[in-house]
Amino acid sequence: MLRIALAGLGTVGAAVVQGLREGADLIASRAGQSITLQAVSARDKKRERACDISGVRWVDDPRQLAELSDIDVVVELMGGDEAAALELAEAALLAGKHFVTANKKLIAEHGVKLAHSAEAHPVQLSFEAAVGGGIPLLKTLREALAGDEVEKLYGILNGTCNYILTRMHSRGIEFASALSEAQKHGYAEADSGTDIKGGDTAHKLAILVALAFGMAPDLTSIRTEGIEHITPLDLQFAHELGCRVKLLGFARRSQKGVEQWVGPALIPEISPLAQVDGALNSVLLHGRRTGDIILQGRGAGGAPTSSAILADLIDIARGFKAPAFGIPAGRLGKIKAVEPQPRRHYLRLQVNDRPGVVAEITGILRDEALSIEQLLQRGKTQNEGVPVTIILHEGEGVVVRRAVKKIEALPTILAQPNLMAIEDYQP
Amino acid sequence: MLRIALAGLGTVGAAVVQGLREGADLIASRAGQSITLQAVSARDKKRERACDISGVRWVDDPRQLAELSDIDVVVELMGGDEAAALELAEAALLAGKHFVTANKKLIAEHGVKLAHSAEAHPVQLSFEAAVGGGIPLLKTLREALAGDEVEKLYGILNGTCNYILTRMHSRGIEFASALSEAQKHGYAEADSGTDIKGGDTAHKLAILVALAFGMAPDLTSIRTEGIEHITPLDLQFAHELGCRVKLLGFARRSQKGVEQWVGPALIPEISPLAQVDGALNSVLLHGRRTGDIILQGRGAGGAPTSSAILADLIDIARGFKAPAFGIPAGRLGKIKAVEPQPRRHYLRLQVNDRPGVVAEITGILRDEALSIEQLLQRGKTQNEGVPVTIILHEGEGVVVRRAVKKIEALPTILAQPNLMAIEDYQP
Repeated sequence: MLRIALAGLGTVGAAVVQGLREGADLIASRAGQSITLQAVSARDKKRERACDISGVRWVDDPRQLAELSDIDVVVELMGGDEAAALELAEAALLAGKHFVTANKKLIAEHGVKLAHSAEAHPVQLSFEAAVGGGIPLLKTLREALAGDEVEKLYGILNGTCNYILTRMHSRGIEFASALSEAQKHGYAEADSGTDIKGGDTAHKLAILVALAFGMAPDLTSIRTEGIEHITPLDLQFAHELGCRVKLLGFARRSQKGVEQWVGPALIPEISPLAQVDGALNSVLLHGRRTGDIILQGRGAGGAPTSSAILADLIDIARGFKAPAFGIPAGRLGKIKAVEPQPRRHYLRLQVNDRPGVVAEITGILRDEALSIEQLLQRGKTQNEGVPVTIILHEGEGVVVRRAVKKIEALPTILAQPNLMAIEDYQP
Repeated sequence: MLRIALAGLGTVGAAVVQGLREGADLIASRAGQSITLQAVSARDKKRERACDISGVRWVDDPRQLAELSDIDVVVELMGGDEAAALELAEAALLAGKHFVTANKKLIAEHGVKLAHSAEAHPVQLSFEAAVGGGIPLLKTLREALAGDEVEKLYGILNGTCNYILTRMHSRGIEFASALSEAQKHGYAEADSGTDIKGGDTAHKLAILVALAFGMAPDLTSIRTEGIEHITPLDLQFAHELGCRVKLLGFARRSQKGVEQWVGPALIPEISPLAQVDGALNSVLLHGRRTGDIILQGRGAGGAPTSSAILADLIDIARGFKAPAFGIPAGRLGKIKAVEPQPRRHYLRLQVNDRPGVVAEITGILRDEALSIEQLLQRGKTQNEGVPVTIILHEGEGVVVRRAVKKIEALPTILAQPNLMAIEDYQP
C-alpha cells in the first residue's frame, strides 16, 4: 500500500481525491499495490468541496504532512503560495517521502535543489502535472527520448493565450475583448498577467529545456514577450502570408549554446501547431534520431492535470526510479545562453503616410544588411497612420532588433513596432 | 553495467548498435549505468553493415543468445521470422533475461503468453518499438494514462498506406500508381500486402487496445479492410465534404464490449489527424479524465525505431518494472467484440445511368430505415456508368452493411460499392 498525503484541495486536488476513490481497483491492478489517501490539508476545513474526504485525516498546517510517519508520498497542489510549497517539498524529501507537485514555478526556480535532496534521501521528485496538464511531455523527454538527443523543442504551452489568439483570429476582435471573453468563460484568471505576458510559458519552457538538454532550468536567460500588443491586423496579415500567430516557448541547442525564448511567432499553416486552437496545448520535440514528435492535448483543468498526478503516483508505486531531470542533479549542465539562430521575421509598423517613409525604413534595413522578402502597404486603418508590414529574409535576431530600434526612433513611426519571429516548418 | 545481446542487424538493428556506441556516455548518465552490446547474431556474418560490430561477440544461431550467462537483455530485431522470434523470446525469458522486441506480430499473437513468462521469471518484456516507431504510444498508455481510463483510440498507424493516400489526394493519381511510387521511394515493400490490406495496422491496433483497455490482444475480432479499392474519386468527394480519407485503426470500449476495426475512413479536415500526411503516424487517445491526447511522428525507419529500443533498454537499466500490458497478464480481460456504434457513413456506387436507378437505391435505404444526409450524382467518368455518392446519417454499421449488400445485388450496380465510416471530430 502506497500512502498519500495531499496538500491543497482546489480544482486539481479535488480531482485527484475523486480519481483515487473512483479508480481505486484499476489503479491498484496497474500500480501493483493500492494507493490510498491518508491525510489532507487545505486552507479552509469547512468549505464545500467537489470531492469526498470523509475518513481522511485532516491536518491544518500542510507542513505537518511531511512529518507524518505513516505517509510515503506528499502531493503538493496548493497553487500560488510558493514559499509554503518549497518548505513542504524540502521537509517531505528530508523525511524520506516522495514528493509530487504540479507547481511549475517551484520546479523552474528550485527544482535542482529539490532534485539533489530527492537523490540524497533517495526518493522520487515528480512533476509531470507542472507542464502541459495531461500531456505526457516530461515522461516523453525523460524516458521515451532518453536514447535520443533532443535538438529543438517548441510549442503552445499556455491555453489562455492560445484561446485569446484563436478568438482574435476567428472573430477579428481586439486583444482586450478576447481577454475579457476568456475571463468570462473561465479560460483566464482575473489576474492574467503571468499568462498573457508569457511568464507562465517561460516557467514551463525552463522545465522542458532542463529535461531535454540535461541542463539546470534557467529562467533568467529566457527572453520573454507576451501577446498584449498583437492586433487583429497582425493576425490578418499572418493569414495572408499563410501563417498563424501563436505564443511559443522555443528552445534550440547548438554547439554554441542554448537559444530559448517565449514570444508570439508566425508559424506556417501546414505546421501541426498552426491548427491547435482554443485552450489546447501542443509541443513539437525534435530528436536527432526520432525526428519531430508532436504531443497535443488539454494543458490545464482539474481532470487532465489530476491524470498526470495519478500517473506520477502509479510510477512511484511501481518502483520507478529516475532522476527528476533525467540525469543526476549534480551532472546537470549550465545553460550558456546564445542569441537566436538566423530566421525570417515579421515586422509591422504604424507609419505616418508621407512621401519617403518607406525609403527611410528600407534604408535602415539595407544599412543592417537585412533583405526584404515582402513589403505590404495598405490604405488607412481606423487608427492614425497606415500599417506597413515587412517580411525579412533570414537574419540574426540581434541585428533585426537593432534595426527595429533605429526604425522606431524615426519621427514617422507612430506606434511601437511589432516584431515577431517566423518559425518555418518542414514536414 | 547492463549487458545486451542483439539478434538481427537490419536497418533497425544497425541503428541500435550505432546509437549505443555514439550515445554511450549520455545513455550511461541517463540510465544510471552503462549499457553495452556484448553479443550479436544475424543471418550473414560477412555482409557489409551500416554499423560497427568490432569487438562484439558473434553468434551464428540467435537462439544461443538466450543461453549466454553474461547477458542481461536480449533484443530481438530479426524481422519477419516469427517462429524464430518466438523461440528466442521464450528461451530468453525462461533464462531470466529481459526481452525487448520491435516485432508487432509476435506481441499481437503471443504477447500474453510471453507476459506470463516475463512475470514468472521476473523480467521485463518491452516492445515500444513495435507500434509507431519513435512515438511513445505504449509508454503513454501503460504509464502516463495509468490513472485514467481510455475510452477510445484511433489513428494512422501505417506509413505506407498514408503515403499512398496522401499522393492519391495531392496528385489525383490511381492507387496502383501511388503504390509503385511508394515502392520506388522505399516507403513500401515489394510485398506490401500486409500494409495495404490493413494487416499491419491490425497488429498494431491489437497491441494498443490491450494496453488501453487491459484486455488480451485479439486479432480475430478486428474487422480489417485495406485501401486497394480507394479511388481518386473517393478522395475528391471526401474533399468536397470537408474530409480526408485515412486508413484508421479504431477501437472504442463501452459497457457492452469493444468495437475494433481497421479500414479507410473519412475524417473531417478540422481533425488533427486529417493533416497528417506522407509516411507519418498519428494517434488520438481519448481518456475519461484527460480528454483527447494526440501523438504524432515517424512511425517507422531505422533511426526513430532504434530510439524506442534504446528507451526500453534505459527503462530496464533504471530498474523500471511494470507489467508488459499495464496490468498482470493473468488479469487481462477477454475482448467481447461488439458491432461499431452508430455513425455516419460514406457510400460510393458505380451505377448504370438509367431512369429509376436512384429510386431503387434509396428505396433499399428507406426499407432499412437509413436516412440520407447528402446524395451526389455527377456526369460520366472514364469508366462505365456514373458515380453516385451518398452520405448516410448516423446508422448502425451492421444495418448499413446489410443495405449495401442488397444494393450491390441490383443489376444496375456496376462495381463493388465503396463503404467507409465517417469518424467525426469535436475539438
